[in-house]
Parts: sequence; C-alpha cells; structure tokens
Amino acid sequence: MTYTDNIIALATPSGVGAIAIIRISGKNAITICETFFKSVSGKRLIEQDTHSIHLGHIIDDGRILDEVLVSIFKDPQSYTGENVVEISCHGSLYIQQEIIQLFLRNGCRIANPGEFTLRAFLNGKLDLSQAEAVADLISSDSEASHQVAMQQMRGGFSNEIKILRDELLNFASLIELELDFAEEDVEFANRKQFKELVTRIIKVLKHLIDSFAIGNVIKNGIPVAIVGEPNVGKSTLLNTLLNEEKAIVSEIPGTTRDAIEDELIIGGISFRFIDTAGIRDTVDVLETIGIKRTFEKIEQSQVMMYLFDASESRSSMEEINKIQKKFPDKHLIVVANKVDKISREDIKELNVTLNVPDGYRDERSHFITLSAKTGEGVEELKTKLLDFINTGALRNNDTIITNSRHYDALLKALVEIQKVQQGMNSGLTGDLLAIDIRQALYHFGEITGEITTDDLLSNIFANFCIGK
Amino acid sequence: MTYTDNIIALATPSGVGAIAIIRISGKNAITICETFFKSVSGKRLIEQDTHSIHLGHIIDDGRILDEVLVSIFKDPQSYTGENVVEISCHGSLYIQQEIIQLFLRNGCRIANPGEFTLRAFLNGKLDLSQAEAVADLISSDSEASHQVAMQQMRGGFSNEIKILRDELLNFASLIELELDFAEEDVEFANRKQFKELVTRIIKVLKHLIDSFAIGNVIKNGIPVAIVGEPNVGKSTLLNTLLNEEKAIVSEIPGTTRDAIEDELIIGGISFRFIDTAGIRDTVDVLETIGIKRTFEKIEQSQVMMYLFDASESRSSMEEINKIQKKFPDKHLIVVANKVDKISREDIKELNVTLNVPDGYRDERSHFITLSAKTGEGVEELKTKLLDFINTGALRNNDTIITNSRHYDALLKALVEIQKVQQGMNSGLTGDLLAIDIRQALYHFGEITGEITTDDLLSNIFANFCIGK
Repeated sequence: MTYTDNIIALATPSGVGAIAIIRISGKNAITICETFFKSVSGKRLIEQDTHSIHLGHIIDDGRILDEVLVSIFKDPQSYTGENVVEISCHGSLYIQQEIIQLFLRNGCRIANPGEFTLRAFLNGKLDLSQAEAVADLISSDSEASHQVAMQQMRGGFSNEIKILRDELLNFASLIELELDFAEEDVEFANRKQFKELVTRIIKVLKHLIDSFAIGNVIKNGIPVAIVGEPNVGKSTLLNTLLNEEKAIVSEIPGTTRDAIEDELIIGGISFRFIDTAGIRDTVDVLETIGIKRTFEKIEQSQVMMYLFDASESRSSMEEINKIQKKFPDKHLIVVANKVDKISREDIKELNVTLNVPDGYRDERSHFITLSAKTGEGVEELKTKLLDFINTGALRNNDTIITNSRHYDALLKALVEIQKVQQGMNSGLTGDLLAIDIRQALYHFGEITGEITTDDLLSNIFANFCIGK
Repeated sequence: MTYTDNIIALATPSGVGAIAIIRISGKNAITICETFFKSVSGKRLIEQDTHSIHLGHIIDDGRILDEVLVSIFKDPQSYTGENVVEISCHGSLYIQQEIIQLFLRNGCRIANPGEFTLRAFLNGKLDLSQAEAVADLISSDSEASHQVAMQQMRGGFSNEIKILRDELLNFASLIELELDFAEEDVEFANRKQFKELVTRIIKVLKHLIDSFAIGNVIKNGIPVAIVGEPNVGKSTLLNTLLNEEKAIVSEIPGTTRDAIEDELIIGGISFRFIDTAGIRDTVDVLETIGIKRTFEKIEQSQVMMYLFDASESRSSMEEINKIQKKFPDKHLIVVANKVDKISREDIKELNVTLNVPDGYRDERSHFITLSAKTGEGVEELKTKLLDFINTGALRNNDTIITNSRHYDALLKALVEIQKVQQGMNSGLTGDLLAIDIRQALYHFGEITGEITTDDLLSNIFANFCIGK
C-alpha cells in the first residue's frame, strides 16, 4: 500500500491567527506549488534545496491570494518521506480557504485524518507505535502524558519490542531449520538459552502489561469523586486546590472542562475532580435518582474523596463505613474539613476516633485533616492523591504502555509465549513449538507495524486530527 | 525608537492542531534558540544560512520538550528585519506552553499585540499603511476585503501618496528656496506647473476620500434591515439566500454570527442581514418598544428591505410610503414575496399599482417580485443589492481607502492643499504658501508613517493579534 496522489490540509488549528500553515505532501507537491507560486527572488522552487524557505506570492489566474513563505522538503527528507511543501500564509480564514481550494482544483485532494503520519509510516519514517505516539503527543496536556508520548515517539517502547522480536525470530528460524533435518535429530537451537530467552520475554511482557495501569492514568487522568453531605466544604476545597494551580491552568487555553468536572494537574499527573450531589440521608433516600447518579459517578472514578465537617459534633463514621462497603475497590481518602474551627486537642481526638473502627484504616484508605478555607493540610492532600499512583516508573524513565491496542497485543503475545514455555517444559516437539512462537511473533509485529491490515491502519489513523 | 530585546509569541491560532508555530524575534533570537535546540545533524544553528530549516529537539535541562523544525531568518532578511526564529512544534497546548515558558525564562519576553509588525515598520520593512493592511488582511473574510487589504499591503495606496508627497515636497523646497532670495524676486518654482500639481493632488485626494464609502462597505459589510409585517416570508427569504451560499459560508468556520444577524457574501461583498420585529400596526403601536427597536435597527443599516405578501389583497403602499418618509436617506428595496401564489397577470398589475404613487419610485428605491419559496427572482434581488454599491472601483483595481485614520488624514490634507490653491489664486506670498504646503505634507506623512508619534503607533498596533 503506497500512495501516488497529493494531499493537502491545514496543519495549524482552525481559526484566525497571525499565520496559518497549509501542508501538501505527494510526488508532485513541489511542482504543483511551483505553478501558483511566484518567488520574490525569481528562482524556481523545483531547483531549490530541501529544507529551504522562499518568500513569494500565491497567484491564482493573475489574482494575488497572499504573500507567503514556502518551505520545501524533498523526498525522502520530509515528515512523510514524500515531497512536502508547507505554505505559511496570513491567518485569515478567507485566505486559508482560497489557497486550499486552489490546490484542490489542481491535483491535490484533502488529506484524511492522520494521513500525513500514515504516509510517514508506510514510507518507513516511523514504526506504528511511534506513529501512534504522535497523536498522543499532540493531545498530551500534562508533563507525565507528554513524557510518555515523547518516549514512545522516540522509539523507546518499540525498540524494546523489536529487540525481543529479533531474538525470538532467531530462535524460531533455528527451530524451523531443525524440522528440515528432523530425521537426523539435531538441535540447532540451544534449548537452555532459548528457555532463558522465553523467561526473559515473559518478565518483560508482564512488566509492560503492568505498566498499562499507570500508563492509562497518565494518558487519561485520574477521576476523583468528591463525596460528602452538603455544606461540608466540597466546593471550597476544589476552589482552594484550583486557585493554587490557577496560574498554570489559565495559561493554557482550552483546558477548561465541564463546570462539574474540574481538572487539576498535581505533580505532572492530571486529576479530574467530579463534584457529586450531597449524600444527605440514609436508607430511605438511597433509591432516589440524585443519589443514584452520585453512585454512578463514584463507580466511574478511581478515587473517592469523602469530606465531612470536623466542627460538627455528629460523627460521620457510619456514613463512611457505609460508602466504603458499597465501593470496596475504590481508593478512599477521608477528609475532615474546617479544622480551623476546632482546637488542636479536638483534631487529635478526631484522629483517634476515626482510626478506631475495624476495616476503616485499611491500605486503600487515608485520613487527612485540613481547612479548605485557610489552606492548612491541602498540600498533604495532594501528596496523598499522588501516593496512590506508583509514579516510580515515571521517575525511572521506564517504558510505560498507554495504548490499549498495545496492551491487547502484549496480552496475546504473553499467552502465546507462555504456551511456548509450557510446551518446552512438557517436551513438545519443534514443529508444535514453532507454531506458538510464530503466533507470539505475530502479536509483536502488530505493535510495531511489521504486520498490519488496512482495517488496523484506518482504525489507528482515524483518531488523528486532519493535517497531521 | 528601536528595540534591542527579544520577543516571543505563538503565531498560530490558539488550540490543538497538528502543528503550532512559535515565533521569536530580536538580536539574540538565534543564539537563544541555539542554547535549547539540538539539531539532528549536529550542526550549529548560528552557522546556518538564512531561510533554512533544521530538524532537532528542544531540550530543557536534559528533558526533551519536543521534536521540532526550526526555521531561521537572519537580519535583515526577515519579516521584522531582525533575527527571527520560527519553531514548528507539535500542536499540543502543553508543548506550546512549555516551549514559550522556557524562552521566557531565558532572555525573551511575550510580544505585545502587533509587535512583530511594529518592528517591521520601525526597521523599514513596511510603511505604516502597509503594516496596517497586514491586520486587515488577517481579518479579511470576503473576496473584496481581501483584495483591498492585499493591494494596500503591497503598497498600492502608499505609493500613490508617496509620489504626490515627493512632488509636493519638491515644490515646497523650491518655494522655500525663493524665500532666501526674496530680495531678488526670482521664481524657482514654476507657478503654472505648481498650479497643475495642486489641481492634480486635489483630484486624487477627492477620489481617495470618495472611495472610503465603498472601502468602508468592503471592510465592514453592508447592514441590511429586513422589514415587514409578520409572516410575509422574511425568514424564508433569508434562508433561501443563505442556503444558496451555504457551501461557501460553512466551509469557513467562525463566520456564524448572532442568530438575528446573518452574514452573506454576494459578489465578494459581505451583507449583514438584520431581522427585525414585524411592523404590524400603525400609529397606536408605533410608540411601543418593539417597534422602536426595529426603527433603531433600520437607523443602523444602510439598506432597508421591505417585504410584503403579494398574494394578500390589502395594499401595502401606505406602509411603504410611511416607512420611506421616516427613513428618507436609506436605500429602499421593496420586495413583493409569494408571487408563486398569484398569476402572471396579477404580478404585472402589482408592478403597475406599486409604480404609480409619486415619490415612491425615486432613485433610491427598487421594486422586485419574487418567491422565497421557489427561489424565483432571488437572483434579481442579489443583483439589486449589489447595484447599490459602486463596485466599479473594485473591478478597476482602483485604490480604495478602508482605514478611517487614512480617511481623516486625507481630509485634513485636502483642506490644507485647498488653502494652497486659494492662496495661489489670490497671489499669496511664498512664505505663507509654504506654511500650508508643510501642513499638507505633514498629513501625507502621517499616512505612510514618515511622521509618527508613540501614541499613534500604540493605537494602531494594539488592534493586532499577538504573534503578528
């Protein structure tokens, strides 16, 4: 599958800005552009060096559409590996549209989403997992998601897979060679070394598969349901958290989310806070729609943050126990708010009281006293939120899987390679081993794109934005 | 006024896209970029040619922020005339922000709106009217506004002014030279030629001043109030008009206006249709707020389109006369709608009936029969809307003034130059003539920027977007 036609798309965000970039890729990208571009220097585009920039005018039938800068990138030294032209024009919607229309009438067609990157993949400029990382990189909105996408784009993950695949392929070939000499009972493949390789591959695969949990958190953020009775200070706490980070949040336009869901980046990890309706009563009201919805939101979240008013005499223990029993697999953080209203002695007592009940202080739960109003204890809450994630992998620059397609392929590869291990232990013959090895190789190949189908490719690239 | 510091800004629209461009301008733009850019080729940026593009990574303290393309433009061969670097990074908001922040911490500051273009002006890359045209070009949203802005940016208008200014300056010098030889009664300046020049300048100025009417229309569009009783088909007509042009309108995102104001581009000119509340009754209701608001809208518009239902027996003549008397200076188009419901004979009669009354069919009014439902006559309506504008100037590529600052300066220059003409006719002495000539020269200089003040410049460039 290769392409011979020429594609065009706006590569910058749609809207009015100082400049806009229109990107053309294809065999004739430069010659087509030449037809409508008159350089100020009078030189012909086609004769220019790759990676050079030229000032001139885009002219349609004598009418000047714009004064532009044209950058040319020659096959294979371009993003797509084809001839590429980037037209930097004035950021008027009218001009962008006129230029694109001009080229559409003259041998270009609108690029499909991700088609530039698809071509880069098909022309061997990127492997498949690197290509996928490009989309992740563009949508990255926190330090951690950016770091993981960048590592994947630079080939960290696929290199690891490729090395394992090559070693496995080597053994597979030797074992299949043995089959040709079946009657002579030779062993080209050193069984001890092969066993060691299989053990190593299983270890790496399990490690990568395990990393998907943190990878998913990094890519999609952690949903935190804020639960509690009305007026315990949920909104105040959220505002306190958000205000402290406001400078960072507001500098990045477009990050504002739905009013009831606020995003906050703590330690490079994105947390999505989901405000819920107060849980006011007990058995009677539990069936009402409002409470149901709150429970649905808790179900969608990973962390359940239970707030109560420390200055109120009534104990909240009953409520806490109830909600924890209802959602035993959610990470629970219990927050005693409004400690500015009570004495140090009372805070200590609060700790004691709340620590007593059985099953309350298990490893999934944390207890924090704070004042959303004064900010006291808020830093500790942030630390607690981060504690929940094993950010060690991130700090150690380990390879982290964020893509569910890779996760699936790794799981399948693991199953096959475990079959190989079992087969070897039970003295399976070479021909049967070879089948399982081939299956494992197949799933490795799916990740890096050595094995692809049209369906797979169109699925992957359909999620890209147009122009990339 | 020159700048020595380095400015940075996002040059592409804010938002997520395939790529984003970050622009840096200033003496140290390239050296600062060099510090954080590691090219794949290993070559140093500072040693590269102007107008060259380099693939590499932006690295902040060992951490790779992005794989980018860096374009360098060397003083004076850049947009601003200074050293310029354009960083083409992945279009993630996070990455854009991280890169900009990195440079802000290292010798750059955020550019003010229009500061790149201001620097281009201060460094003599553009004159003031050309610089102003850049902002117009970016906000151009129709063929006509684009054409006028493009012509102005290419210097069409300022060249005309500059030539007149030079000729006038030449005569001014000669006349002032005469003053040095006052006792000898010589005439260095040929009075006949000078009279001819003054006459020519006045003609050109008047022509340019007149063009402001059409220029304003081109730049800001023409407001058309749609007036009429309820259910005469105002909305249907608007939909019919809009549907026909929908393909063009919808391809340009961001053009959708307030629900009650719809924009439509006819023949390259933007028309802004303002739907008004139906005028149902006569004297009694005229004082109500609804009708008042309709009248306010008519007041704001240039064209008043009065619709009535041709299939209704009751004549609308009374209404039409009333509204025309109320707004005598508005261009009136009377539209008889729903002609699909009546016979050809009735249509003819309609024409006759409506043509009869005195004062009705003056030069400012037009009468059209159409069916918004079937589309019959809609093309004729469009032609009528365009007739109102003297698009001849546009077609002939005449210079058109769109900027009210230029308009003011031209008016002032005209007053001064007319004083010169009168002075010459009444035999004014050279020293007095010279004063008026200097004044006219001053206003010419204001247009092209040969004479500027800080206030003037900050006023002009404050209207630019950041990054341009």
